[in-house]
Amino acid sequence: MGGRRNWVGVGGAWAVIVERMRESVPGPVMGDAFGGVLRACHEVGARTGAVFQIIERDDGHIAASDAAVYFAPVEDWPELERHACEEITGRVLDVGCGAGRHASVLIAAGAGVIGLDSSPGAVAVAQARGVDARLGSASAIPVGIDAMDTVVLFGNGIGLLGSPQQAPVVLAELARVAAPGARLLGSGLDPSVTTNPIHLAYHDHNRQRGRMPGQLRLRVRHERLASEWFDYLLPSEAELTDLVRNSPWRLDEMRHDDHGGYLAVMHLR
Amino acid sequence: MGGRRNWVGVGGAWAVIVERMRESVPGPVMGDAFGGVLRACHEVGARTGAVFQIIERDDGHIAASDAAVYFAPVEDWPELERHACEEITGRVLDVGCGAGRHASVLIAAGAGVIGLDSSPGAVAVAQARGVDARLGSASAIPVGIDAMDTVVLFGNGIGLLGSPQQAPVVLAELARVAAPGARLLGSGLDPSVTTNPIHLAYHDHNRQRGRMPGQLRLRVRHERLASEWFDYLLPSEAELTDLVRNSPWRLDEMRHDDHGGYLAVMHLR
Repeated sequence: MGGRRNWVGVGGAWAVIVERMRESVPGPVMGDAFGGVLRACHEVGARTGAVFQIIERDDGHIAASDAAVYFAPVEDWPELERHACEEITGRVLDVGCGAGRHASVLIAAGAGVIGLDSSPGAVAVAQARGVDARLGSASAIPVGIDAMDTVVLFGNGIGLLGSPQQAPVVLAELARVAAPGARLLGSGLDPSVTTNPIHLAYHDHNRQRGRMPGQLRLRVRHERLASEWFDYLLPSEAELTDLVRNSPWRLDEMRHDDHGGYLAVMHLR
Repeated sequence: MGGRRNWVGVGGAWAVIVERMRESVPGPVMGDAFGGVLRACHEVGARTGAVFQIIERDDGHIAASDAAVYFAPVEDWPELERHACEEITGRVLDVGCGAGRHASVLIAAGAGVIGLDSSPGAVAVAQARGVDARLGSASAIPVGIDAMDTVVLFGNGIGLLGSPQQAPVVLAELARVAAPGARLLGSGLDPSVTTNPIHLAYHDHNRQRGRMPGQLRLRVRHERLASEWFDYLLPSEAELTDLVRNSPWRLDEMRHDDHGGYLAVMHLR
């Protein structure tokens, strides 16, 4: 009787499974979707309007954007990043280097740059474009990288702090490979500037489940590939200040643009 | 004992459900995703690089394209459609009119055009652009539409034939609202021209499950919206000939471009 009640209770969900099996829907294949996007865009000469990055959020929201932005020349960058690049000195670690748009410009300006990305496809494309790119994540930096004078997290790279749980791990790992007095430059986005009701509802949904409002759960999709779901963080200035407070880094300066974007300037304590 | 075996047997699927409930992933919302794409693109003045249509296939493949193509001026159309428009006479039914890119050009050339689309958002945008657009599908044309001299299915509109089961229904319905001697002009795409291994594998998958190779099962996604899954047909010339053979229409001519695209010219028997 109890068993029967259970079967009645799961009827709706069960119907979904049966329907999926009947239609034999294979669904996306787990893989390096971000790398697939960059490779495809690189293959067409990084021209606009040809390859699009598709990002799915765990509320079912989906958005596409032109992948050519990952190859954008310096004049198309956000002004905060353009200015920051002019100040960079010494050996640079470009965390989340992607196709190497920042790294290649810094190299051309004479800097010694190592790129780091967790996507094998991104590393391959950045290497093909002349960047010393290595495979690894901000929370697990491979051996052979140390004493970096400047760490950059551009292209909203502050998002790689991920979550309140992940951020201390990343900040400690970046400090481990930094030289005394090193500087960290990271660009980010304040989630509170949006007026889009879909995003505001998502922020509320996040609060209700004990996450930071701008703690996005995302995956990249490309052709049949889907990445693993990952956390990507859009912290406000106050939230970023909290995350950095007890880290090896001191948040010295926040520069803002007019669209909620900011550049955080930190120094190793 | 039998019940226990069942529970063990469904363990994998059950774990998926529990995981989804635990993460409280709401997923996309069923709705007029195609209309959402067209509305958003219309709101930004139909400029390129701003709004993208995302189409998901039931093998997990996903692709984005610029929604501005639905507003493209006549000089950007495929040559086959441009030439066909010059031949059009009398009262025109534009099936799957979308944002009305063909209808508005035909109207400007002096034709009397009724647009038909199953997306409320598409109908609203086409109306805002001066098209007499009506809500309805090719298999259920609303009252008040009859004695049309020309029926057009442009923008790969042959795809609206859907499936071997759906095609006779659509062809009969279009004949019902057509004047004696009416002409049908439909653009389509031969699925066999692709060399993409992902698409070729999909065609094989379709054959194995008793579907036509180019019988795509798709849904449109936009922000949090997902359309219902629908069948969209890419028939070869031979397949189209078979589908039309016992219909009220006579396939008189097939014009081809160099990329697998074709324009089918039919007359009401």
